[in-house]
Amino acid sequence: MLNVVELVSFADIKAAADRIAPDAVRTPLVPVLHGTDPARPLWLKPENLQPTGAFKLRGALNAVRSLSPAQRAAGVVTHSSGNHGQALAYGGKLEGVSVVVVIPKDAPSVKIEACQAHGAQVVLVAPEDREPRMLQLAEERGLTTIPPYDHRDIIAGQGTVGLEIAADLPEVATVLVPVSGGGLLSGVAAAVKALAPDARVVGVEPELAADAWESFRAGELVRWSVADCNRTIADGLRAQLSALTFAHVREHVDEIVTVSEAQIESAMAWLARNGRVVAEPSGAAATAAYLCADLPPGPTVAVVSGGNADPDRYARILAGG
Amino acid sequence: MLNVVELVSFADIKAAADRIAPDAVRTPLVPVLHGTDPARPLWLKPENLQPTGAFKLRGALNAVRSLSPAQRAAGVVTHSSGNHGQALAYGGKLEGVSVVVVIPKDAPSVKIEACQAHGAQVVLVAPEDREPRMLQLAEERGLTTIPPYDHRDIIAGQGTVGLEIAADLPEVATVLVPVSGGGLLSGVAAAVKALAPDARVVGVEPELAADAWESFRAGELVRWSVADCNRTIADGLRAQLSALTFAHVREHVDEIVTVSEAQIESAMAWLARNGRVVAEPSGAAATAAYLCADLPPGPTVAVVSGGNADPDRYARILAGG
Repeated sequence: MLNVVELVSFADIKAAADRIAPDAVRTPLVPVLHGTDPARPLWLKPENLQPTGAFKLRGALNAVRSLSPAQRAAGVVTHSSGNHGQALAYGGKLEGVSVVVVIPKDAPSVKIEACQAHGAQVVLVAPEDREPRMLQLAEERGLTTIPPYDHRDIIAGQGTVGLEIAADLPEVATVLVPVSGGGLLSGVAAAVKALAPDARVVGVEPELAADAWESFRAGELVRWSVADCNRTIADGLRAQLSALTFAHVREHVDEIVTVSEAQIESAMAWLARNGRVVAEPSGAAATAAYLCADLPPGPTVAVVSGGNADPDRYARILAGG
Repeated sequence: MLNVVELVSFADIKAAADRIAPDAVRTPLVPVLHGTDPARPLWLKPENLQPTGAFKLRGALNAVRSLSPAQRAAGVVTHSSGNHGQALAYGGKLEGVSVVVVIPKDAPSVKIEACQAHGAQVVLVAPEDREPRMLQLAEERGLTTIPPYDHRDIIAGQGTVGLEIAADLPEVATVLVPVSGGGLLSGVAAAVKALAPDARVVGVEPELAADAWESFRAGELVRWSVADCNRTIADGLRAQLSALTFAHVREHVDEIVTVSEAQIESAMAWLARNGRVVAEPSGAAATAAYLCADLPPGPTVAVVSGGNADPDRYARILAGG
């Protein structure tokens, strides 16, 4: 049986841009003047400036604003240990839609409190029960599920990052995008290939959670164990591609490269010094690839996907240990 | 004799906005969701994202692009131990105008190197010889002086920060702006009062360099000793008002408040955590006032004026010591 997946279109991404415009920050491209390679001038796309600290707000807002009136009235549910939960909670608050976030018990309390601060109901579960519990709550309470990446409205919302990059820098040669579940990479690649078809779109993944890199080379979805993926400090890059996001990656993405843990930490300090932005580990991965991977010449954009770094760890990393 | 000073007009600021648009970053307003007072919602104006790391690029670009052809051919000279020199060096590079920067010998080598990296000639002098040497070089070589703040084109360029704030948040009630020589405060106040006349414009100064605060209360320019002003860690806020900037302050500014050294350091860490931006001490002063001063309710904007923090000191401050 042929499994046909409908990809997110450029029209979907343009529609998402209109939906999120009033509340998502239109982030600028920030040129980096020092410490860069003149043959590959670098711009940052600082999604750490989104109100909830990460690009996730784009997809979450687009998904909430795409609900039917009946769905809005019933409310939504998701699972997340990080930035998506906070983004959906905030999007729900803006729209008056009730939000339930299923969070693993071992998540940092600051992330739980951020969801609650936006009025979301938090349900704590064992890590392996995240997705089943979300589905159970959806069925019991008639809630609409808005998972973190395996959803066309989420991908279309994240794609607005790519739309803005191509609009602001039409001559871009390389766009570096971190990969986790692949929602951001799928959307950005779809937008960039529509507006700047000659640009290369490169996914960046931690070596310790390189399921997308391996899947891309194999030409089929390869699963890694959750325990293996959880080794990376880039806690936002531990999820794995879905069939939907892998279909986008195969269609639009040119390459996936990996970066080490040390390269990620070093890029966090480099970004503070040369870009003057706070990046969480996941948010520094694309810049780590700029600094360390073998990439072609030309104008390059690195997406700084988020800035919700643990304050103590961040201070230690900037201090060089 | 009546000393009549021609103030920078809103038309001057609009013209500056057109001149700098291709190369200055159009910074967004960044809402801060956590750690703020609901009665005074806070937005940051992240000028740390400018290519040279501070708002100074706006004034420098406007000044260079306002030169006559003969002035462009002859070149320009300034004195600066910090962000203005770097900004002018970069602006000169963009326009093919040669730049000389007079820098005190005790300035950090990283600032000297940043000017040189943009192709400027650096002249090192004893701190007290900065301005005389600039004037001497101007006369000897036929260079045009572009001082850091005591210049109408500089004030008009910095005013574009205020123009953007009022355009993006017309309902703004309070705009918090750091004060040093007063170029930024003068320009922002002129723009905000033209577009949002009900908004209060508040200057923020370190307690240890509070000449503007004292002048504002006295109704006349009061000088502090350089040694006194140099005590603050906010090295970008050690200069003093000129007759030109004080005239703008008297015309447009509602209030000047002061912040302590501890409040500035604390605001740097708060900005990293809650705003996800790297602020140098001067860049955190306005946010320190938001957090600590007695200010009226309503939508509030704090200008994060720059992010060129010394990396070692920054890491120490984030670590709480």
